[in-house]
Amino acid sequence: MADRAAVRRGQLGMTEGELARRAGMSVAYLRRLWLLDGDFDPSAVRRVAEALGMTAEELTGGRPDAPEGQSVAAPHPALSQLPEGECWERLGTHGIGRLGLPTRAAPLVLPVNYLVDARTVVYRTEPESPAAVTAGAPLSFEADHFDDRSSGGWSVLLTGTADRISDPAAVRALAARPGARPWAGGPRNLWIRVVPVQVSGRYIRHL
Amino acid sequence: MADRAAVRRGQLGMTEGELARRAGMSVAYLRRLWLLDGDFDPSAVRRVAEALGMTAEELTGGRPDAPEGQSVAAPHPALSQLPEGECWERLGTHGIGRLGLPTRAAPLVLPVNYLVDARTVVYRTEPESPAAVTAGAPLSFEADHFDDRSSGGWSVLLTGTADRISDPAAVRALAARPGARPWAGGPRNLWIRVVPVQVSGRYIRHL
Repeated sequence: MADRAAVRRGQLGMTEGELARRAGMSVAYLRRLWLLDGDFDPSAVRRVAEALGMTAEELTGGRPDAPEGQSVAAPHPALSQLPEGECWERLGTHGIGRLGLPTRAAPLVLPVNYLVDARTVVYRTEPESPAAVTAGAPLSFEADHFDDRSSGGWSVLLTGTADRISDPAAVRALAARPGARPWAGGPRNLWIRVVPVQVSGRYIRHL
Repeated sequence: MADRAAVRRGQLGMTEGELARRAGMSVAYLRRLWLLDGDFDPSAVRRVAEALGMTAEELTGGRPDAPEGQSVAAPHPALSQLPEGECWERLGTHGIGRLGLPTRAAPLVLPVNYLVDARTVVYRTEPESPAAVTAGAPLSFEADHFDDRSSGGWSVLLTGTADRISDPAAVRALAARPGARPWAGGPRNLWIRVVPVQVSGRYIRHL
């Protein structure tokens, strides 16, 4: 893998012709790419980065893992409510959302992989996790999507109570679904259902 | 703007040559693009989509606004703690995070644009918003980043208390910073500081 500073010094570890060939472009185009700063085809940068064993972000020095919300607000934004049906559409079948768990002081807000199951949200956890709440406990669930290109996005919030899923057949059916395996690993054999009392959603409109 | 079904039927609203020219590619490449299904340069799809007045997602039928967490878990993931210094690094200077606000029942979890200011997090809101908490009120703040390509990510959680920023000079300095304008619009002249009592972070390792 190449080092960014070395690349900037022109130490590519291969000839320019070889890099252009690997990146699937002409040497002329590669040279234009080095000269321009930002105003070029992003996939070309990605191809050059891949040919150098780097990510595009490593090559260009951006932060690939920054939170959303890096770009400036749109010129005339406004916030609108989402109808409940659309909230469920936005949640889709699965994804990553965040639990809101009450404590004596400030709530815990913890990301989880979730499945949507019959207008409830289901997640899995470990018995010793703060997310391993008891049946009937109040909790909330939030999911959202923000887009740095449009400076827009949406969020959905479920507030309700927890239910533990203990029926082995129900657990088997859930575990077989796409998105059921937690990104964070671990067995996570405790399945919890967020039963919503209230569902609300908001999105950023551009006037 | 073209309609996806019409595009699939070959009704492009222009000749193939014209579309290829607008997308900056040869007709031969454009024809390869129609035939292949997924195994091609994503930016080429984007250029074709732009030439048709659509987004790449609209053209290919994917959901551009799905929550993170659509891809399957990595083979051997594990969760690790982030040291506090790295939590602040991940938060960066600004972005979108989520407030956790206690209520009598389940907490509210609401996205906000934030600024990091001297190891506190600052956001702006309206006086009538649930985010307009009083000084000393407990609240939390979460930010994260998840990446559907690597099925990895991180999250940071601040739990602490709120403070209202009333000094006009402090407000002016904050308002002048990049990322200070809220994506959701509105004047949002009430500035609130999350003063953390505890800072914790986690990231997904791949073993």
